[in-house]
Amino acid sequence: MDKNIEIGMLLDFYGQLLTDRQQEILNLYFENDLSLAEISEDLGITRQGVHDNIKRAEKSLYEYEERLGIVNKFMQNKIKIGNALKHIDLAQKKAEDTEINGHLGTVKEILNQIIDD
Amino acid sequence: MDKNIEIGMLLDFYGQLLTDRQQEILNLYFENDLSLAEISEDLGITRQGVHDNIKRAEKSLYEYEERLGIVNKFMQNKIKIGNALKHIDLAQKKAEDTEINGHLGTVKEILNQIIDD
Repeated sequence: MDKNIEIGMLLDFYGQLLTDRQQEILNLYFENDLSLAEISEDLGITRQGVHDNIKRAEKSLYEYEERLGIVNKFMQNKIKIGNALKHIDLAQKKAEDTEINGHLGTVKEILNQIIDD
Repeated sequence: MDKNIEIGMLLDFYGQLLTDRQQEILNLYFENDLSLAEISEDLGITRQGVHDNIKRAEKSLYEYEERLGIVNKFMQNKIKIGNALKHIDLAQKKAEDTEINGHLGTVKEILNQIIDD
């Protein structure tokens, strides 16, 4: 996985366990795509301080994932649900009954909602 | 939700963030159903120490859930998937085509696997 996407997901799941400062810096760096120099200027801390904060926060995020594995589980469930959706599509292609297709449409909505959540 | 079930779920998701000692004590108390006195004797710490450890660990678990909300999300997804499974059952009752039923059977397997994980 692209590292920025990976950090983005880790931030989504575990960001609330970091300090406010770490969350702020990681958001500026990974979400708003600011440079170390820009963050340094914005927050009034040294470029090295920004760098160290990012490294420490990244390390914490990976450690949380190593302990809890929630991002991994989420990704696996996403793949499984994608697979389920394919089978529903195949069933829908064969089904001509509108009641059956209505039920399967509802199932697709529910599963897409879970994936997008 | 029954408090023991709730703590059990919080332990499943966040237990790895507690200290080894806290995990040990909560497991003895909630999973193995030992009394405070029994745990006190087993681990060679006072009954009060066991009690304080349990209270502190419980507090941490609830704080993790307050920050991350993963148990809540998991429960909501479980309800959604249960709902999806009902619609698949209804579709299957109407469907006479073996191919359609095969696909829906696969979808049910996948969704049950996600719930039981």
